[in-house]
Amino acid sequence: MQISEEIKSAEARIRKHVRLTPVEDAYALSADTDCNVILKLENFQKTGSFKLRGAFNKMLLLDEDIRSRGVVAASTGNHGAAVACAAAALDIPATVYVPTHADETKLKTIRAYGADIQAYGTDCVDAERQARAFSDDQNIAYVSPYNDVAVVAGQGSLGVELSNQIETIDAVFVSMGGGGLISGVGSYLKTINTKTEVVACSPANSCVMHQSLEAGELLDLPSEPTLSDGTAGGVEAGSITFGLCQSVVDHSVLVSEDEIAHAMRHVVSNHHVLIEGAAGAAVAGFLKERHRYVGKTVVILLCGANISMEVMKRVLG
Amino acid sequence: MQISEEIKSAEARIRKHVRLTPVEDAYALSADTDCNVILKLENFQKTGSFKLRGAFNKMLLLDEDIRSRGVVAASTGNHGAAVACAAAALDIPATVYVPTHADETKLKTIRAYGADIQAYGTDCVDAERQARAFSDDQNIAYVSPYNDVAVVAGQGSLGVELSNQIETIDAVFVSMGGGGLISGVGSYLKTINTKTEVVACSPANSCVMHQSLEAGELLDLPSEPTLSDGTAGGVEAGSITFGLCQSVVDHSVLVSEDEIAHAMRHVVSNHHVLIEGAAGAAVAGFLKERHRYVGKTVVILLCGANISMEVMKRVLG
Repeated sequence: MQISEEIKSAEARIRKHVRLTPVEDAYALSADTDCNVILKLENFQKTGSFKLRGAFNKMLLLDEDIRSRGVVAASTGNHGAAVACAAAALDIPATVYVPTHADETKLKTIRAYGADIQAYGTDCVDAERQARAFSDDQNIAYVSPYNDVAVVAGQGSLGVELSNQIETIDAVFVSMGGGGLISGVGSYLKTINTKTEVVACSPANSCVMHQSLEAGELLDLPSEPTLSDGTAGGVEAGSITFGLCQSVVDHSVLVSEDEIAHAMRHVVSNHHVLIEGAAGAAVAGFLKERHRYVGKTVVILLCGANISMEVMKRVLG
Repeated sequence: MQISEEIKSAEARIRKHVRLTPVEDAYALSADTDCNVILKLENFQKTGSFKLRGAFNKMLLLDEDIRSRGVVAASTGNHGAAVACAAAALDIPATVYVPTHADETKLKTIRAYGADIQAYGTDCVDAERQARAFSDDQNIAYVSPYNDVAVVAGQGSLGVELSNQIETIDAVFVSMGGGGLISGVGSYLKTINTKTEVVACSPANSCVMHQSLEAGELLDLPSEPTLSDGTAGGVEAGSITFGLCQSVVDHSVLVSEDEIAHAMRHVVSNHHVLIEGAAGAAVAGFLKERHRYVGKTVVILLCGANISMEVMKRVLG
């Protein structure tokens, strides 16, 4: 099946489980840039991020006898909360592996959804390796954060919603980490309109997929801390998202921490909604490229809202 | 027509113009209080507040020849933005009166929707008097923030949504200012289930309707500044909301500024959504009364998200 067909099926499959998030005119951005800027408010999604879409699609596609055994994932953040929430809604057990020294406040949401949290190893790579081992040993489905066509298709349901909500989209700005979100959304929007430009936005401090796309091969590179923690970190060797990103990403933009913080302040101050750093990166990417889109209709995907009080205080200055 | 019928019609009338806002389990509040607490996320409403509902219902009920002449209102805040947004959507002119020294950042949204802003007098009472005079002189419909059955019915559409979203509601906590929101929501929920308790939450610093309900007559009282600026100020003499509040409000709770701030931090930190002080007042009211609702299903209406960066910084500490 073509990826766009998988995405269309995913949208229908998960529809009753996720929120159809609204779009909103970004009046101030439009006035400042002479573009028609529209925000997709996926920061309103249940669990505060788009990750819920991929998690639901993956779980709903499992054979029932496998699904009833539960699922396992590794993540302290949005993916972990999404897997825990979807599993709770489907009434199946979820195990989430996290590093031993994971910040307790980040685990609060995962715990609230009733997932079993297993602390293992010193970093996310350790936790992920152990989650996969648990999956193999116990014959329990592993839910990848992005390296799975079912997960990519779930995130792509955002593209289906956008194509129903907005007549013609000249460009879409999406933050890029592992590449699951932009692969899904970009693939779908390109089948609706081949002229829609797909622009990837990454923090300069952690931009492994961006550098991999430039190099033409998936690289193993270090990352610095970034406000856009939702996109930070390495990309799994052999990830299916690399090829998808190669085919759908038209431009890839890097943004600084200051640019992300400025963009976050702009959105909070003008739209009175909370966004996390990864969403700020997409807004910052647009602001950097805005001169190329004068008179055009541009969508900025606000992918999530999960920001700690400490980071928020720092960003608001 | 009974008010509950007016509300039901209003919900159908405005449905395509407003967002059907989601409900969300307040897992941390539920765990802390042994209640089943559900948040109604009206802070996700377009313009960042419920006021859009009343504004749309009022404008859609106007005769077409009157409506086409435009509307006038007085407000620097949520009501002004709502009237401007609804008028823009219906393609009619809007004039919004504000006091001469109104904070420019608060007028940004009203201006963005293309409304004509008229500065007049030194306070809101002056601006309102002038808006009414303009309405009479020019035969232009005046949109009241609460003293109009069409406006109350529009706000009541939230009750219709809640009754569709939640099977049995034992109590609903709603912030109370002029009383339009609680009148509408309470009236509808009581017709669905006479046992649903309607609890009004007001800041102790400005609680004119609360004191009026206690006195058994509408009082003219001064107000102190409050984080819950959306509910602050006096209540218009002869307001229809007084009698409605008398009949639907089961309990009326006062909350301090510290309690509002604490409640706001709780919601931002646990749910990653932005709320304004008036929404915080409803959460604070529940926290004060929680011992009375153990084992019960309680809805807290988060009525809006419009908070300035300065206030947010102060609240987050």
